[in-house]
Amino acid sequence: MKDSNTTIDQLKEQVKKYCEERDWDQYHNLKDLAIGVITEASELLEHFRFKSEKEIQQMLNDPKKRGEISEEMADTLYFIVRMAQKYDIDLSDAFEKKMEKNRTKYPVDKAKGSNKKYNEL
Amino acid sequence: MKDSNTTIDQLKEQVKKYCEERDWDQYHNLKDLAIGVITEASELLEHFRFKSEKEIQQMLNDPKKRGEISEEMADTLYFIVRMAQKYDIDLSDAFEKKMEKNRTKYPVDKAKGSNKKYNEL
Amino acid sequence: MKDSNTTIDQLKEQVKKYCEERDWDQYHNLKDLAIGVITEASELLEHFRFKSEKEIQQMLNDPKKRGEISEEMADTLYFIVRMAQKYDIDLSDAFEKKMEKNRTKYPVDKAKGSNKKYNEL
Amino acid sequence: MKDSNTTIDQLKEQVKKYCEERDWDQYHNLKDLAIGVITEASELLEHFRFKSEKEIQQMLNDPKKRGEISEEMADTLYFIVRMAQKYDIDLSDAFEKKMEKNRTKYPVDKAKGSNKKYNEL
Repeated sequence: MKDSNTTIDQLKEQVKKYCEERDWDQYHNLKDLAIGVITEASELLEHFRFKSEKEIQQMLNDPKKRGEISEEMADTLYFIVRMAQKYDIDLSDAFEKKMEKNRTKYPVDKAKGSNKKYNEL
Repeated sequence: MKDSNTTIDQLKEQVKKYCEERDWDQYHNLKDLAIGVITEASELLEHFRFKSEKEIQQMLNDPKKRGEISEEMADTLYFIVRMAQKYDIDLSDAFEKKMEKNRTKYPVDKAKGSNKKYNEL
Repeated sequence: MKDSNTTIDQLKEQVKKYCEERDWDQYHNLKDLAIGVITEASELLEHFRFKSEKEIQQMLNDPKKRGEISEEMADTLYFIVRMAQKYDIDLSDAFEKKMEKNRTKYPVDKAKGSNKKYNEL
Repeated sequence: MKDSNTTIDQLKEQVKKYCEERDWDQYHNLKDLAIGVITEASELLEHFRFKSEKEIQQMLNDPKKRGEISEEMADTLYFIVRMAQKYDIDLSDAFEKKMEKNRTKYPVDKAKGSNKKYNEL
């Protein structure tokens, strides 16, 4: 699978099959899946704890480290896709709507080159 | 956009355009983007804090609440996609590889119906 | 050390000595210490992922599991205390002020028996 | 209250009284309190998202920002203390034991001046 030709529905289908085969619907309520998202996001973040930008750049150039980071990203994505699949949420639709909102919250003329939050712009 | 026909690359393109227009490459290093993922994952989780399963079910049936939850999922996805886009990581490929690993870590005959971690199976 | 006679300053002193001996001041900036807090909070939370209230109650009755949970709490506390020690923040003072604010945000007559957020009371 | 003369038990007593007056024992199970810890840790971390070390230093010198950061630290501490108080865990004892473990995991001669994890030392 490649990002160029993989749809969100294809990710959902993989996740659905995987969880159904293991009979995990009973454990996958919304609260625990959200815990899944954040605990995996934390494992991703932990790679960078106390590391300088230079060291992080070196990680990215190291295939093993790069693979580990990609894996944590995949784990986080897995739980988001599972939430969306189980609770019938269209991620692409939600994404598009949120990006539209973001464009209004961060108008180019005010947000360009700035790291301020929208309420401080 | 719908999950049925939206590819990951299409999400990446939206994010790339949005961030380029705002000249945000300078702030979007890996550590801060990973902070982005976890802080949005936390806003998603916060919706369920101290809520019972019944109350969470009611949230899902309330279009306004459902929209808010979808929005937090989109925010989390945004930062994962941004990381992948900026640092040239193929999410679908990482996802497929991780699912393959998961199938080995959680073999159906041992994991079926169980909520144990792989190292406790 | 026991909670009955251990002051926050005594925790700060232990942390200060420990980090000075290891020459870690150079890595312990505020952003990375805040990453420390959340990554340890995540390890604490992960113990309860997909677990029912009954299972969590059993964990508490199991001395080994109880010890592991206490350890994750200690790890989270360590980073909060380190932040406060390094950046000269009086935690007890901040705590007292915040509790005073909380009492106003959640007045007894409105908040009693409710799991709503203050802005929904 | 000041860190110099405030014991953990005094924090516990404040939290206990506050929660009992609001009849919140029914909501404060271990899973949701751990969610409390991580969501507050996230609000703390969010202050530093996309900020440079120089900007964070400026925040610390700004009494208003410094107060906000202290408040998020107090919120995180509140949930740890509440967990410990409700589930009868001695934080100082857990802290002392964990610091002892840490001293072994990160021996001075190996860890001095290093930002590596114990398993990489």
